[in-house]
Amino acid sequence: MISEFELIRRYFTHRAQGAVLGVGDDAALVRVKPGCELAISTDMLVAGQHFFPDADPVRLGHKALAVNLSDMAAMGAVPRWVTLALALPQVDPRWLAGFARGFMALARRFKVDLVGGDTTRGPLNICVHILGEVPRGRALRRDGAKTGHDVWVSGTLGGAALAVAAGKGRIALNRSERKVCADRLDLPEPRVALGVALRRVASSAIDISDGLVADLGHIAEESGVGAVIGLDLLPRVAAMTRHAGSMIAREALLSGGDDYELCFTAPANRRAAVAAIGRRLGLVLTCIGSVVRAPGVTHRVMVLDRDGRPVDPDRAGFDHFK
Amino acid sequence: MISEFELIRRYFTHRAQGAVLGVGDDAALVRVKPGCELAISTDMLVAGQHFFPDADPVRLGHKALAVNLSDMAAMGAVPRWVTLALALPQVDPRWLAGFARGFMALARRFKVDLVGGDTTRGPLNICVHILGEVPRGRALRRDGAKTGHDVWVSGTLGGAALAVAAGKGRIALNRSERKVCADRLDLPEPRVALGVALRRVASSAIDISDGLVADLGHIAEESGVGAVIGLDLLPRVAAMTRHAGSMIAREALLSGGDDYELCFTAPANRRAAVAAIGRRLGLVLTCIGSVVRAPGVTHRVMVLDRDGRPVDPDRAGFDHFK
Repeated sequence: MISEFELIRRYFTHRAQGAVLGVGDDAALVRVKPGCELAISTDMLVAGQHFFPDADPVRLGHKALAVNLSDMAAMGAVPRWVTLALALPQVDPRWLAGFARGFMALARRFKVDLVGGDTTRGPLNICVHILGEVPRGRALRRDGAKTGHDVWVSGTLGGAALAVAAGKGRIALNRSERKVCADRLDLPEPRVALGVALRRVASSAIDISDGLVADLGHIAEESGVGAVIGLDLLPRVAAMTRHAGSMIAREALLSGGDDYELCFTAPANRRAAVAAIGRRLGLVLTCIGSVVRAPGVTHRVMVLDRDGRPVDPDRAGFDHFK
Repeated sequence: MISEFELIRRYFTHRAQGAVLGVGDDAALVRVKPGCELAISTDMLVAGQHFFPDADPVRLGHKALAVNLSDMAAMGAVPRWVTLALALPQVDPRWLAGFARGFMALARRFKVDLVGGDTTRGPLNICVHILGEVPRGRALRRDGAKTGHDVWVSGTLGGAALAVAAGKGRIALNRSERKVCADRLDLPEPRVALGVALRRVASSAIDISDGLVADLGHIAEESGVGAVIGLDLLPRVAAMTRHAGSMIAREALLSGGDDYELCFTAPANRRAAVAAIGRRLGLVLTCIGSVVRAPGVTHRVMVLDRDGRPVDPDRAGFDHFK
């Protein structure tokens, strides 16, 4: 059987461009740019929980890195270095080659160095750890939203959740809808350039991994404010048009995770600046509501329909132990 | 059922002393000391592979962090920040409280901040990621050993491997031997202070996680040299005395992993300096051989018995896929 060391060397060794010392010692060594803080995040993906055990390894490699890049985007940080720890039930060179292809292609595109990792036998588990740089004091945090600020989201919402719903037979998608939604679920595009551009504009930011209402709720909690958003204002994936009236579509918009768009707040007098960023990046940015402080709304997100009536969203978001 | 968020808060939230922003945002934020490089390492521990599924959670918490601290020690880095990703088959508050107690006690002792993590449902898997600081250009690497340098190890060897052998019924230990060896296996003491002290003395270093011969072999390979060590020179755990002649004891000494002592090389004219470090730290440091360049020995470790005859060690070390 191929050895662990050989296996790692074959698929994951690449010349670390931005490291003093890459894979192959007890630790990697890197230098953080002067004047920068280091942003640190980690995500663990488990078969059967975050992805189907038979998921396409190329797409899985993409996603494993993308969700971590998205955390950097949400901080306004430039991703620099990652490590990859893998537990594998067996050595399957085809699977590994595919996973490495998806992972490394995205790493190259974002100029991120794979500087270390660990490989072991065990039930399939993928743990990625990421480090990014952000100028001191400029990080986008969750605790900066102020009353009167606008609430924005990037791109479109609900696609990933529709793909999951279709997979469970809860909604019937046609072939093109299925393709679009599956790509939203499997191949999220981390909004790194947006995060960087928002450093001087946004007052808070988060990436939408657990669902819009849950994630915006984190901003509300950390900032000690509330948020009111309009259901009809939410930018939805085109595949949703045919299903606009369905409960599942609404659920996907409000509580569907895995879209990895950014939700952020910005002062109302910076609308033009936000719009300009969207134009420059070729990315739709949509104002979906306001930060408020009102009885009963603080620490909460209130969703209103077109008639101003409160919609009751599932606020829980994705909780792996619920 | 208790929520994932609540669970994390309850057991793992502590005030990050040395971080700009700790747990609770998309990423933590820290500042690396000017003039320092960042050392980065990660280890994944899987139930049934690295520990018994019914292992004492307090000891497991200790070990999960200790093996990562040991990687920092082997680099001469001061450990600063860790993240912890956990996959758990179910929420067992007793297990979690124990694990957190073992983990956090060691973290406090080494002044390491837990700045982030991830918790998910899945087969038990523990992935720790660690960051440390080391002055620029001062890290202890594997590639600096030179012909004529001494080879050293800290502490004693073989204890952890004897505990594993006893667990498998391959060797009979009495109660006190069993206790000593089990502690070596479960509660390794990371040699952080030694690593820091060796920065200006050692020419290379590694921690012994896969077995002395395998790990010293990594130094030999990376440095392009060979090493000759004396079997009788190896400092052995006292519990080994009764079993000195056995093959299992020899195997434990040469190929037993999990002792997490440091193996390092230093110029022969620095013997007094190394000895002084050992005295200051109250830690036995033993010279076990020499770095050589000779036909057939380069990139290899040769073990000699008291009569100068080569001993054939199992060179493989611990390879999870063999």
